[in-house]
Amino acid sequence: MSGRSDLEDMHPAELRLMIRDGRFRGFTNHVATDYVQGNLMIVPSRYADDFEGFCKRNAAAMPLLGRSLPGEATIPALAEDLDLRRDVGAYSVFENGQLTGVRQDIGDLWRDDLVAFVIGCSFSFETMLRRGGVRLRHLEEGNVSAMYVTNRQTVPAGPFGGPLVVSMRALTPADAIAATLLSASYPKFHGAPVHIGIPEAIGIADLGESYGGHGLTALHDDELPVFWACGATAQMAALHAQLPLCITHHKAHMVLTDRLIEDMAA
Amino acid sequence: MSGRSDLEDMHPAELRLMIRDGRFRGFTNHVATDYVQGNLMIVPSRYADDFEGFCKRNAAAMPLLGRSLPGEATIPALAEDLDLRRDVGAYSVFENGQLTGVRQDIGDLWRDDLVAFVIGCSFSFETMLRRGGVRLRHLEEGNVSAMYVTNRQTVPAGPFGGPLVVSMRALTPADAIAATLLSASYPKFHGAPVHIGIPEAIGIADLGESYGGHGLTALHDDELPVFWACGATAQMAALHAQLPLCITHHKAHMVLTDRLIEDMAA
Repeated sequence: MSGRSDLEDMHPAELRLMIRDGRFRGFTNHVATDYVQGNLMIVPSRYADDFEGFCKRNAAAMPLLGRSLPGEATIPALAEDLDLRRDVGAYSVFENGQLTGVRQDIGDLWRDDLVAFVIGCSFSFETMLRRGGVRLRHLEEGNVSAMYVTNRQTVPAGPFGGPLVVSMRALTPADAIAATLLSASYPKFHGAPVHIGIPEAIGIADLGESYGGHGLTALHDDELPVFWACGATAQMAALHAQLPLCITHHKAHMVLTDRLIEDMAA
Repeated sequence: MSGRSDLEDMHPAELRLMIRDGRFRGFTNHVATDYVQGNLMIVPSRYADDFEGFCKRNAAAMPLLGRSLPGEATIPALAEDLDLRRDVGAYSVFENGQLTGVRQDIGDLWRDDLVAFVIGCSFSFETMLRRGGVRLRHLEEGNVSAMYVTNRQTVPAGPFGGPLVVSMRALTPADAIAATLLSASYPKFHGAPVHIGIPEAIGIADLGESYGGHGLTALHDDELPVFWACGATAQMAALHAQLPLCITHHKAHMVLTDRLIEDMAA
């Protein structure tokens, strides 16, 4: 990245207001980059304890940053004024395992029995990688990291289970080593990579075929694919569980918190 | 490794006696594995300060463990009874950049102006990798790690310079990540890898062609080559410098010290 943009330096509280009133709807991997971002998962309360157990059993993919009380669409520990019904740029609504809508506001869907979880996201460790001198080509190209469904299985809990989803970054060997060491210090953002090189060894036949169809997928000759456990594992598990209702952030539109990334080192 | 051998558990002081009187002449990567081993470099005193500077400028390859006083063939901080004229299983003698002998004793070559350096060795971090659950196939196969001359240049000092030499281990991706994290804690044994995958990116055209022609060089399909800076960089630099005399350990016959590996974490 050459220089920083206004959005990059903006405080997340201001960005949340911009999202809330429709002035910002972009991917969040370029904004408020000093602050922790998270995946969102909202489930009916009768599934909440199983979901928390699922996160804890698969903590590399789903490091828990916070859980709301039933019916409360906020997690004050992450941001005082957080309103999880309208502070995320786009939401995916799933019913019985089917995507039934992409929304910019879920106020009308909110219920007294819903519980929200915020889960650590690799966008946060990308800040630490860049500070450590690691070149993230996907960011330079205005892209996001690609995701893939692997042949590795999560440890199930209640109705939740299914495959591990990973995010991939194309890195030079020296940067792959530096990124491994840097990310290991941040277990709340997935920690160290789970795999490097040899995509087929984790069931990825073609890097060009990413989960969701977006992200940088073409490697240069001097790059290795480096894979981190990804919070999208939670979304896939919720689909497999065929919950009557679950609401998540829509791709690359994350929850912006007021927690500083640098305070989250292990 | 399944089980441990007697040599593996033996104290280095006993092994040094066995080497001294000819009862052990094997490679040392399987012996006294709880204790630090080192590369040996003996140079005339007028080159000693330049050589120490060369080590410090290229500390990943040549982490200094100790330096003798001129004419004293011991470094008491590494082992009280260490006799560097006969405690190493095999020595290489170089004159004017040419190998002129491989010896089991250099007592008759010793001079009042010689200074000995002991430099950290990857055999020591292999112990920490194995304890951390990393599979080292070359050890299982009774082999050593292969070495390669790279296209990367050291930072010169006085007459010393030339290319970086690396050691390579064939590791699964998960073990490559674990080994990166484990070795990073031991800068005295070369620290984290300097390269992973893509051998040609550091000037290695063919993994089958190792420096010295020994070591495990054939990868399995599920393995990546992982490269660490190697103390053999010092030997190559001394050859390039065409010193009138320099004496080193002969391949994989290292200096055995009484220092515990676990005490050497950064």
